[in-house]
Amino acid sequence: MTRAEQAQLAMMLEVCAFPKPGNVDRCHDYETTRVEHFLASTILARPALDRAERAVGGIGSLILDAVERTSVHSGGNTHFGAFILLMPLIMGGDIPGAERVVRETTVEDAVLFYTAFGKTKVRVITGNDLDVTDPHSCDIIRQQGMTLFDIMLYSAKNDMVAREWINGFQLTRRGADLLKAYGCGRDSIVQTFLNLLATEPDTFIIKKHGKDTAWEVMQKAQDVRNGLRDLVTFDQECINAGINPGSIADIMIAALYIALGEGWIWDC
Amino acid sequence: MTRAEQAQLAMMLEVCAFPKPGNVDRCHDYETTRVEHFLASTILARPALDRAERAVGGIGSLILDAVERTSVHSGGNTHFGAFILLMPLIMGGDIPGAERVVRETTVEDAVLFYTAFGKTKVRVITGNDLDVTDPHSCDIIRQQGMTLFDIMLYSAKNDMVAREWINGFQLTRRGADLLKAYGCGRDSIVQTFLNLLATEPDTFIIKKHGKDTAWEVMQKAQDVRNGLRDLVTFDQECINAGINPGSIADIMIAALYIALGEGWIWDC
Repeated sequence: MTRAEQAQLAMMLEVCAFPKPGNVDRCHDYETTRVEHFLASTILARPALDRAERAVGGIGSLILDAVERTSVHSGGNTHFGAFILLMPLIMGGDIPGAERVVRETTVEDAVLFYTAFGKTKVRVITGNDLDVTDPHSCDIIRQQGMTLFDIMLYSAKNDMVAREWINGFQLTRRGADLLKAYGCGRDSIVQTFLNLLATEPDTFIIKKHGKDTAWEVMQKAQDVRNGLRDLVTFDQECINAGINPGSIADIMIAALYIALGEGWIWDC
Repeated sequence: MTRAEQAQLAMMLEVCAFPKPGNVDRCHDYETTRVEHFLASTILARPALDRAERAVGGIGSLILDAVERTSVHSGGNTHFGAFILLMPLIMGGDIPGAERVVRETTVEDAVLFYTAFGKTKVRVITGNDLDVTDPHSCDIIRQQGMTLFDIMLYSAKNDMVAREWINGFQLTRRGADLLKAYGCGRDSIVQTFLNLLATEPDTFIIKKHGKDTAWEVMQKAQDVRNGLRDLVTFDQECINAGINPGSIADIMIAALYIALGEGWIWDC
């Protein structure tokens, strides 16, 4: 299997696993974003993932390519955060390789990344210097000579996906280790997702609903793990309230990519 | 969108649509063949579909390539019948083009097709001259100078997928027209599937369960369309009895491929 295929399987397995509290899964759609949108994005990203494997172009242009290829449907952003993690992992081959890749990014990567960001409808905290809704952001990046790694360093405080670039893909590593510890197959994905949800505040939830909600979700996920709360009911509650742990889903995809590369079996 | 991507979207949309009586869909797995197996096969077939689009190799070698790439999981045969229809449609571009392609097949295509067939666990009626479980079949093909078109002509009586090659892709055409008539989106796929199921005996069901069962399924599908029977209950009945209309699913994929190429919208 190629690395691009490994990444596509990771994206497919993540969206099929259920029940995943609050997120689109095999049994739950959001009205405007459905499982078919995630799977179409998984299919259509292929040439950009192939390019990453053959190291054709820098990481900024690869993320932009993936976003352009997968924005053709009406489902909105599906895999932007996942591409931020998958591209360096595919280019570098593994986590140590990806750490080298992210540290070698350029100002041009940062500018192209912002172009890609502008094409998605990703939720951001507006009003700061590097607001992607502000056309002057690219000027600031160039003036200050910020690389894409610098951008991620800047964003790491509020974004757990960016944090992966800075801290050596710690949660990705933990997710992959959990998958392997829980054993093969679909249920391990759900258990790993729940474990991360119970121990890490999801920064996508924080941006959308605030810290208190993110904290509450963590505690409820912990209750589910302790057998004090029903998983399916919790899932439905989250969906009804529009609370979707999108950043943990992105990290889950990266963890699946690593675990598949280390021999974890999805199909048992 | 490339033709290969259009084919992949067709495969993905078919397996996600629900409820589809008896078949794997978003809400139903069989114990050994699950929705993830169909989606993994959809992803892993890509290079073979790309080759078909660039006309690299004959149709026999393309079907063999697709089968080899998608046999890496434990889910058994998922898309063999779909590849038989998709390969000429991708190579020819549309139905008239596919009709030309199938009539130009060679003895070598037939031999490679039998090699592919031998690698799947597709259900066949054994005991005839061209039994794929019989190693002498390839000798017979070469001795008699049978092309892959001749093989399909020979199989058409008992196999509705082979029949498509012979009769100008009639059910593929009808499926595509139905999809467009029912309108955009997932529900049209279900309605088209039900329409075909109510009007055509599925040859995969005949091979597995006999003609009486296939006839009964048709009549029950007709009852569903007339509001006399509940679709979800009928689906569950079929699944419990292991009655899966696999050939109509293959034709549905081909119909989706054609409809997508003619502007039908999956995403509304």
